[in-house]
Parts: sequence; structure tokens; C-alpha cells
Amino acid sequence: MKKYLSLILLLFPILVHAENEVQISNAELKLMIDSAWVVLCGVLVFFMQAGFALIESGTVRSKNTVNVLMKNYIDACVGGLVFWLIGFGLMFGVNPTGWVGLSHFAPNSLDGWHWTMLFFQMMFAATATTIASGAMAERIHFIGYIVCTIFVSALIYPIFGSWAWGSLFEGAGWLKSMGFIDFAGSTVVHSIGGWVALAGVIILGPRLGRFGRDGKPHHIPGHNLSLVALGGFILWLSWFGFNAGSTVAADVSIGKIALNTHLAACASAVAYMLLALIRGKAILLTMTINASLGGLVAITAGCATMSPLFSIITGLVAGVVVTFLPMLLEKLKIDDAVDAFTVHTGCGIWGTLAAGYFLETDMFNLSQLGVQAIGVGAAAVWGFGTALVMFWVMDKVLGGLRVSKQHEQRGLDYTEHAELSYPEFQQDVLADLDEITKRH
Amino acid sequence: MKKYLSLILLLFPILVHAENEVQISNAELKLMIDSAWVVLCGVLVFFMQAGFALIESGTVRSKNTVNVLMKNYIDACVGGLVFWLIGFGLMFGVNPTGWVGLSHFAPNSLDGWHWTMLFFQMMFAATATTIASGAMAERIHFIGYIVCTIFVSALIYPIFGSWAWGSLFEGAGWLKSMGFIDFAGSTVVHSIGGWVALAGVIILGPRLGRFGRDGKPHHIPGHNLSLVALGGFILWLSWFGFNAGSTVAADVSIGKIALNTHLAACASAVAYMLLALIRGKAILLTMTINASLGGLVAITAGCATMSPLFSIITGLVAGVVVTFLPMLLEKLKIDDAVDAFTVHTGCGIWGTLAAGYFLETDMFNLSQLGVQAIGVGAAAVWGFGTALVMFWVMDKVLGGLRVSKQHEQRGLDYTEHAELSYPEFQQDVLADLDEITKRH
Amino acid sequence: MKKYLSLILLLFPILVHAENEVQISNAELKLMIDSAWVVLCGVLVFFMQAGFALIESGTVRSKNTVNVLMKNYIDACVGGLVFWLIGFGLMFGVNPTGWVGLSHFAPNSLDGWHWTMLFFQMMFAATATTIASGAMAERIHFIGYIVCTIFVSALIYPIFGSWAWGSLFEGAGWLKSMGFIDFAGSTVVHSIGGWVALAGVIILGPRLGRFGRDGKPHHIPGHNLSLVALGGFILWLSWFGFNAGSTVAADVSIGKIALNTHLAACASAVAYMLLALIRGKAILLTMTINASLGGLVAITAGCATMSPLFSIITGLVAGVVVTFLPMLLEKLKIDDAVDAFTVHTGCGIWGTLAAGYFLETDMFNLSQLGVQAIGVGAAAVWGFGTALVMFWVMDKVLGGLRVSKQHEQRGLDYTEHAELSYPEFQQDVLADLDEITKRH
Repeated sequence: MKKYLSLILLLFPILVHAENEVQISNAELKLMIDSAWVVLCGVLVFFMQAGFALIESGTVRSKNTVNVLMKNYIDACVGGLVFWLIGFGLMFGVNPTGWVGLSHFAPNSLDGWHWTMLFFQMMFAATATTIASGAMAERIHFIGYIVCTIFVSALIYPIFGSWAWGSLFEGAGWLKSMGFIDFAGSTVVHSIGGWVALAGVIILGPRLGRFGRDGKPHHIPGHNLSLVALGGFILWLSWFGFNAGSTVAADVSIGKIALNTHLAACASAVAYMLLALIRGKAILLTMTINASLGGLVAITAGCATMSPLFSIITGLVAGVVVTFLPMLLEKLKIDDAVDAFTVHTGCGIWGTLAAGYFLETDMFNLSQLGVQAIGVGAAAVWGFGTALVMFWVMDKVLGGLRVSKQHEQRGLDYTEHAELSYPEFQQDVLADLDEITKRH
Repeated sequence: MKKYLSLILLLFPILVHAENEVQISNAELKLMIDSAWVVLCGVLVFFMQAGFALIESGTVRSKNTVNVLMKNYIDACVGGLVFWLIGFGLMFGVNPTGWVGLSHFAPNSLDGWHWTMLFFQMMFAATATTIASGAMAERIHFIGYIVCTIFVSALIYPIFGSWAWGSLFEGAGWLKSMGFIDFAGSTVVHSIGGWVALAGVIILGPRLGRFGRDGKPHHIPGHNLSLVALGGFILWLSWFGFNAGSTVAADVSIGKIALNTHLAACASAVAYMLLALIRGKAILLTMTINASLGGLVAITAGCATMSPLFSIITGLVAGVVVTFLPMLLEKLKIDDAVDAFTVHTGCGIWGTLAAGYFLETDMFNLSQLGVQAIGVGAAAVWGFGTALVMFWVMDKVLGGLRVSKQHEQRGLDYTEHAELSYPEFQQDVLADLDEITKRH
Repeated sequence: MKKYLSLILLLFPILVHAENEVQISNAELKLMIDSAWVVLCGVLVFFMQAGFALIESGTVRSKNTVNVLMKNYIDACVGGLVFWLIGFGLMFGVNPTGWVGLSHFAPNSLDGWHWTMLFFQMMFAATATTIASGAMAERIHFIGYIVCTIFVSALIYPIFGSWAWGSLFEGAGWLKSMGFIDFAGSTVVHSIGGWVALAGVIILGPRLGRFGRDGKPHHIPGHNLSLVALGGFILWLSWFGFNAGSTVAADVSIGKIALNTHLAACASAVAYMLLALIRGKAILLTMTINASLGGLVAITAGCATMSPLFSIITGLVAGVVVTFLPMLLEKLKIDDAVDAFTVHTGCGIWGTLAAGYFLETDMFNLSQLGVQAIGVGAAAVWGFGTALVMFWVMDKVLGGLRVSKQHEQRGLDYTEHAELSYPEFQQDVLADLDEITKRH
């Protein structure tokens, strides 16, 4: 009998793998699927850089197009290196206190899965960092902006991130330990980015001509709404990777997350449109796109834990926020060139609260709502506070954040980059092309 | 002996999963892979909205750019909500008669896989809906257009879809039961969309100036062919998700489907180019891109069941259709601003017939060809018929589908949206910017 | 006892698959994952066509936009068909000598996996082919260019490829047998493409006005830097598929490959920026984007076998190459309109050497560096040599590669395609629209 038993046992591997040519375990297969999923979602999140670059450059005047594009391109480059060097360690390194990670700086040997996670998280850091660029458009020094993005991707974003999402190795952030729900980062990524933007525009002040001498606001129309629309589509596309990829596993739930993400964006745009119709206002492309982005920001926190019906409700409210919050900011004489604060922080706050209150498995729980409010408040204090100090020091101590009036009037493409975006079509500046070339 | 047997049975799970740290079954792994594949393909299909928006807006005059972009943006938003509310149930719900689905309206609790399917199918519905927008460009009321897209995504598309693809739960559509082959929707998505477009342009009539008083056609050139080319690339890219994703499984056949898709698009563009060379005509960018799209539409029905050689043949013929069909429509004084009917219905019909006749496993079977023809005919009767009624009612009963002559001449961006696409470069309308802002 | 044993054996399938509804083996699952991964990466690589089209068309003057877009669109179409017909067989077919593949021409029945591989490799061939289009912009005959791309995708690229990457079936290329490391094609794809470009621009000569009568260089600014930036983002995005997809398996290493790819691109752009700051030069958008692409090209060979630190170093050096190599070419009166030779061959050579010297498992091995140098030299001799013959024959024997002076001054959009890219905004050519239509 024992002989037979041994035989059976010997047969096992053959039987189990009989049909296989490859000897591969289910755990290895799962790791492969998850790696492919997370890398592809990270690639989608990378594409957000293009989305932001297009929306922001299309929303400004043509004389500042190159400048805005460059800010988006270079902050991703600098931010990538800095996040590898410092940010990842602070955010996801071993976190004994719950307040900051302390290991895995400039990592040069990790296992396959952690490289995948680093890649994915690096794209998130780039997103958080670039949010501020549009708000401060048309008046900030290029090099000053780049220095600020180093601080955001090295310190401001990762340290807050360590509270809500750390650690990948040992220890847990204090917000995470409290049960704070922010699945893909309505607060961690978007609100933080928006708070930085708000601090920046306050220190910079409004663009020349944005408010008249009588204080009346003047609309400054964007130079290329085709680019704005394309940027909107690209961000929406990338957001599926942002939200569904935050499972960091090819989980069976990703379809629902993608659906929730989509429905919230649809609902927010439709809410804005209906409000415009009711109010007898024109339905603007720029506002429609911002509304859809507001819906995407809002659903980011709760996309994995809400039912589709409540995703739609979350989106509808985001459309209301995008409609009215800019009016308040305008009254306060705050000039956010692309409404970044409204979209990313306004809707980010709403979405973080909604994620707690509309939790599918525990609806309308006020104590969860309280935890969410703590996270929202912590982001406000940390994000706005540190950014205000940073911009203030840059502006008052380190020689000025804002370009001169002459440069602002001339346009930053000419003064900061010696390149025009459309030299054949910007006839007024064409005469200077020879001088430009000398600076190349 | 029995004792030993029990022991062996107890050992099983350990033996089978010995090398695994994760306890996960092969069925669960398959579900994970399929979910990741279908979600990512759905994301690609979403990007078609951007492709259509760019092609259509680049093909019209700059004074109608915002309007075209907005139609594409908003119809996806409205269509997404409506498809969730009604369309999905009609198309994929329990279908006892074979003529329409009757369950799963406004679904709020499904399992993971069905959420994934709903997400994927929602993107298909958005594609079918948006096809008509370009054809009717430069003259349709924005709100009228949006109302029509509600009908398309709620009724016209889903009901036909239920015949060919329903149900996901119980019952089968009558066309499906007949053995109708339309793998990814040459007929279900594209022909239907094109028939709606044809009905729309017939009710609307041609654009002012498209045909002279003597009836001679005048070419209206698009304002931005860079956008048209980019739109073409984006649609081509998305089509891989559209076709290969229609496996709704990460099947081993997806590489062949992607290859067939690509070869047909290549062949169609090359066929157009060669025809132009032979006919002594210029090789137009707009026509080249339409030809490649025609190849993509044509291979959509048969991409999973043809050999590459016949995919190329299918594409070549599509290039012929794209070359000559617009001439016929022009003679009939039909003004399809982007040749949507040619690309989507013309090539859709051809591709659906080809899918039956070039079936790799059963070539040149005339009875299959007959079944295909029935599907093609049903799409014509249903799609064109219902859309004609819809547009006619909108136009004659509900107050008019077409904007006034003054508005058409002025451009819909100014009259319908109070936003200009390129305010710095459209000098003739710049004077009105102050008035525009008042409508914001 | 035997009875029991049989019973157990009968039970096996049930036991093993007890929890599964689907009967699927681990080998089948691996094939599914790998197929999904490789197809999606191939789809990303396809998108490179859009990236190149945008960068190149944005970098030229508006009068040549349609022409550049068309070259990129059509070479992908023609190249796809030709690679299926001939190229795949030459590159990956049975390779008895190590010098060329001899089977699998015009394949019409392969297994699923090989269809996937053909699809993926077809996208690579399209990339190699299209690299030259930008360098030769604004002066090459459209049809002449298309004929040349046939030779590149049918012969020049596949034959070199068979040395380094062949065969998929039997036999191995001589470079592969030597241990030449070129994971995703710094040499196979990019250097070869750049050598073809160099040969082309030498035969064509510089654009009118690029060098004055005194030999002084004149900068010709691109007409649309928004498109250039978007093209840069799209290429960067696609590169993740290019590099990580070259695993041709959803391997656990793909995260590290994607990370290395990203870091090298970041580092290269930052190196250029710092050099510009040090040299007191303006930081140009066009150069920044070229620098990031140079970093991507450089890391392509070694992305799978380097540590992140050395990926960064590889990128930094690429930024130096992109900064200085164009100055040398300018001194030699070589007019490469988009610096394609610098980005693809300059950085391709550096990256291929770095891949050997910075091999994580065998650092600073000079004999590996020697093998790499042989590969680099072989690409130079083969790529530049065959292309020079091809362009020379086209130019001197077959009737001329370059358009007439009048046509060059007028712009190729008008003379070669009878379509303008922005007819409403190019006032100087608007008068000819009627004449254009006659050529349609």
C-alpha cells in the first residue's frame, strides 16, 4: 500500500502539470497579472501629464503656451528623479511613528513587485506636483516654479502621503490607522495639489488685467480650446488607470471602479450643463471639461467602495461645486487661471467626505464622516501651510517668484524660453526671431 | 486503506498549492486576466471619443470647432448615464422574445464581471451614438443634438444590439439565433451609427454654400488637418481595444484579431492611395484617414474569423468604397460633413458581408452570406427608419433641428456656446469678446 | 487497492479543479496573460506613429504640415503590408546562416502566439521606418519617400534585425550568437532608423535657406510647438510599451523596465536643462523634448539589465549627446530638420554601449563592450551603406528625390497634396483654394 501511495505522490506533479509546458505556480501567475495591470495603469497615469499640459496651455494666451507646456514637461522630469531620490522613502519607507517614512531612499535594489509599485507611485507624485502649474500660469518664473516642484515632490506630497497611504514595508500612517478612506487620492493627490496651487496664486497675485482698477473681473480667454478638449479626454482616459490601478492588483472589482469613475464624470458634466441651462447661461466648453474633471476628482476617494448610484450623486454634486466655487474665488480676487483649486481641492474635499458617507457597506455613518473630515483638515493645514511658507520664502527671500510687468505683457514664451509656440501666426512678435535665435 | 485515502485527500490542497503563498484558483486567475483585459480595452474604446472629436472638429471651419467638440464631449456624458439607466437593460437584459431585453435597468448591484461588461458596453454605446455628430456638423442645434443622442443611446442602438448580441443573462436575440456574425460591431455599432447620421443630414439639409445655386458642389475645407491626423491615429489605436476586446476574454486569439485589424486599415488606405494615383488625383490627407477608418469599420465584423490575407482583401475593398461612395452622395445633394455614412455604414455593410463570405472555417458559404444580408437589412430598416422619425419629429413638431441662417453664417461657437476656439487668431470675431463674456 | 487507485485518479480532475468552473491550465493562463500584455504593448508602440507625426509636423513650417503627417500615416500603412509580406520572414523566419531569415513570408496560418508576435514586431518595424521621415522633411518627394520606406521595412530593417533578434523559429542571428545586448532596440530600431535618416539628408541636401550664402546657419522655427510637446508626451507614453513589452511576457521585471525607462528620460531632459543654464542659453521646448527622447533611445538597449542608478547615468549622458551633437552636424552643413540622427543614432550608439558596460550582473566588462561596439559598427555599415545606395539610386537614376525649388518655396502641402493644414489661417495661399479643389 505504501508503495502505491508513494507512486501516487510521485505522480502528483505530473498529473497537476500534465497539460502544462511551463512550470509556473498560481502565485507567480497572480504576480504576473498584477504587475502587468499596475504597470499599464501607471502608464495611463503618466499620460495625465499630457492632459494637464494641453488643458493648461490651451487655457492661457498663446504668448505663454511654451512656458506652460515646459512647466508640465520639466516638472515630471525633475519630480521623477526627486521622488526616486527622497519622496518614495518618505512616503512608503518604514514608518515607525506614523508621521513619515524613513527608509528606501534612492532605491537601487528592490524586488520586481516593489519596482512596479515605485513606478506606479512615481506617476502619482508627478500628478500631484503638476496640478499647481496651471493655476499659476502666465506670471511665475520658470526656474522658480521648477524649484517649487522639487519641494512638492520631495516633501509636501510624500509626507502627507505617508500619513494616509504609508508604509509599503512596516508601520502605518496615522490617518490610515484611523480608517481614513481615500482609495486613489481625492485628498492625498488632488486636494494637496490644489492647496499648493492656492498658496501659489495668493503669493503671486492675479495676472495683469485679470481685475480692473475698479476691481471688476475680466475674462481672459484661452487661445486654443481644441487643445483644452483633447486634454480633457486624455485626463479622463488616464483617470481609469489612476482609479482602477489603485487596487494595485488585477482585482475583479476593477470593472466597477472604472464604471463608477466614468459615471461620476458624466454626471458632473451633465449637472453643470443643466445648471447653465436653468441659469440661462451659455454652456461653455472650458466649464464642461472642468466639471467632468471635478467629477473624476470627487469619485477618486470612493470609487472602490460606492455603488454606481451614489457615484452618480457624487458626480452631480461635483458639478455644482465646479459651477459656483469659482465665483467665490473671483470675489476674493484670487486668480486661478485654470480653476485648479476648484477642481482638485473643492471637488477633492467633497469626494473625500462622500467616500465616507456613501460607503456601500456602511452607509451614512457619521463617525466615518468625522474621520474623513480629519483627513480633509489635515490636508488643508499641511498642504496650504507648507506651500504658503515655500512660496513666501521663494518670493520674499530668494529673489522673487513673479516675472516683471514687461515680461508678463510680452509673454513668457519670449522672455523665459526664447521660443514662440506658433511663430507664423503670432505676427506681432515675429520681428524678434533673429534676436531669439541668438539666445539659443 | 481508507485511512490512507483520507490522508491523501486531505493533502490535496496542500500539494496543489504547496508552492503558492496566495490561495487562488485558476478560475479566479482567469477572471482577473479577463477583467484586466476587458477594462483596458474599454478604456481604449473610451478614447475613441477623443478621436472622433478631433477628426470632426478639424474637418469643419474654425467657427464651429467648439460646437463639434462639445457635441462629442456631452454626448458621451449624457449617453453614459442613459445607457446605465435604460440602454444596458434593453440590450443585454433578459430577452425572452429575442426582440428586446427587459431586466437590469439602472443596475446598482451586479457581480464584478457584469460591472466590467457594463463598463465595456457603455463605451460601445458611446461610440455608436457619437458617429452621427460629425455628419450633421455646422448646422444642428446643440440641445437638439443632445436630445437625439439620448434616443440613440437609450433606444435605437440598444434595441438593435439586443437582436444581434443580447442577452448577457437569459435568452438570445433573433439575429444572434440565426447565426449572424458581427464580432465587434460593423453593423451593430457602425452601420447603425451611420444610418442615424444619414437620416440626420437628410432632415437637416446641406450646409449653406455646400451646393451652389446651380447645384454644383463646393468643397468646404477643414480648418485644422493636424487635428484630423491625430484623430485618425487615436481612432486606429482605440480600435485595437474595440476589436480585440470584443473577445471579452484575454484569449490567445487577440494577437490575430489585432493583426487583422491593423492589416485591413493599412490595406484600405493603400487602396485609396493607389486609386488616386491611377486616377491622377491628389492624395488627400482627409481621404487617406477616412480610408483607413473604413478599413477598420469593415474588418470589425470579421476580425476574429478571417485569415490575414482576407483581412487585407476586406480592407482593399473598403478603400474602394471610401473613394467612390462620397461621389454618389454628393450627386444626391447629401451633405455629410465628415463622410460618416460612407465610412461607418458603407464600409460597415461591406465588412458584415465579408465576415460571412470570408469565414476562415467555412469559406464562400452563400447561406451565411444570406444571414449577413438579413442583418444588414435589419440595421438599415431599424436604424434609418427610427432615426428618420426621430429627426423629423424634432424638426417639424418640436421646434426645429437646424439653427438660423444668421447663426450658421456666424458660426455655432459664437451663437450656441459663447466661446471661440482660437480667439487670438479669429480676428473677425474678436470684437465680440466682451459681449460673449456677458453670456457666461 | 487498484480499484481505489483508479478511483483516486478519476477524482483528480475534479479535485484539482473543484473550485473552478473553467478547466484551464497554468500554461494556458500564462499564455493568456502574455498575449494580453504583448498585444497591449504593441498597441502602445503603434501610438508612436502619432507621436512622431506630431513632433515632426509641429517642427516644420505650416506649409509642409500635411506632407509630414501624410508621410507618417502612409509609411505605417505601406510598411505594415510589406512587413507582413516580406519583412517578418527575413527578420524572424528560420535563419540557418545567422544572416537572414528564409521562411514565413506572407504568413496566413500561424498559431495564436506567433500572430501576437507578428503584430508586436510589425509595430517595431513601423517605428524604425518612420524615424527618417522627420529628418528629410520639407523637401522630399512624397512618392519617393514612400518607395524608400518600402525598402526600409522590407529589407534594411528586417535583415539587420535578423542578425540581432532572429529567429523566432530556428537558428540565431550572428550578433545574437555573439551575446550582443540590445533588449528593445537602441541599435536594431533606433540607430538603423537614424542611419537611414542621415543618408537621406546627405543625398537631399539642406533645405533652402537653412544655410546662408556665407554658410551661416539659419534657424527655421517649427510652426506649432503645442503639437511638438504633445508628440513628446505620446512618444514617452508609447515607449513604456516599446521597452517593457520587449519582455514578450508579462514578466515580474516589467515594473523595473518601465521605471528605468522613465528615469533615463527624466535624467536626459534635466541634463540638457542644466547644461543650458550653465551655458547661459535659453531652455528650449524643442530641445527639452528631444533630450527626453534621447534618454528613451539610450535606455532602450539596457532597460532590462541595468539598475535604476545606471539608467539615470545613461540618461544624463544622452542629454549631453542631444545638446552637442547637433552643433557638429550643423558645422558639417547637414540639415536634419528634427535632429533625428542625434536622438536615434547618437543616443542609440551611446545606449548600446552603456547596456554592455553597465550590465547589472557583470559591470564594466570590456569584452561585452567590445561585442556592443561590433553591433554598433555593423548597424552603421549596413544601415548607412544600404540607405545611401538606395537614396542615391532614387535621386540619380530614378528621376530625383527632391522637389523643385518652386515647390519647396510654395510648400509641399500645396504642391504634393492639394490640401492646406490651416486654410483659414494661412492667408497667403488661400487664393488658390479653387484650383486645389480641381485636383481632388
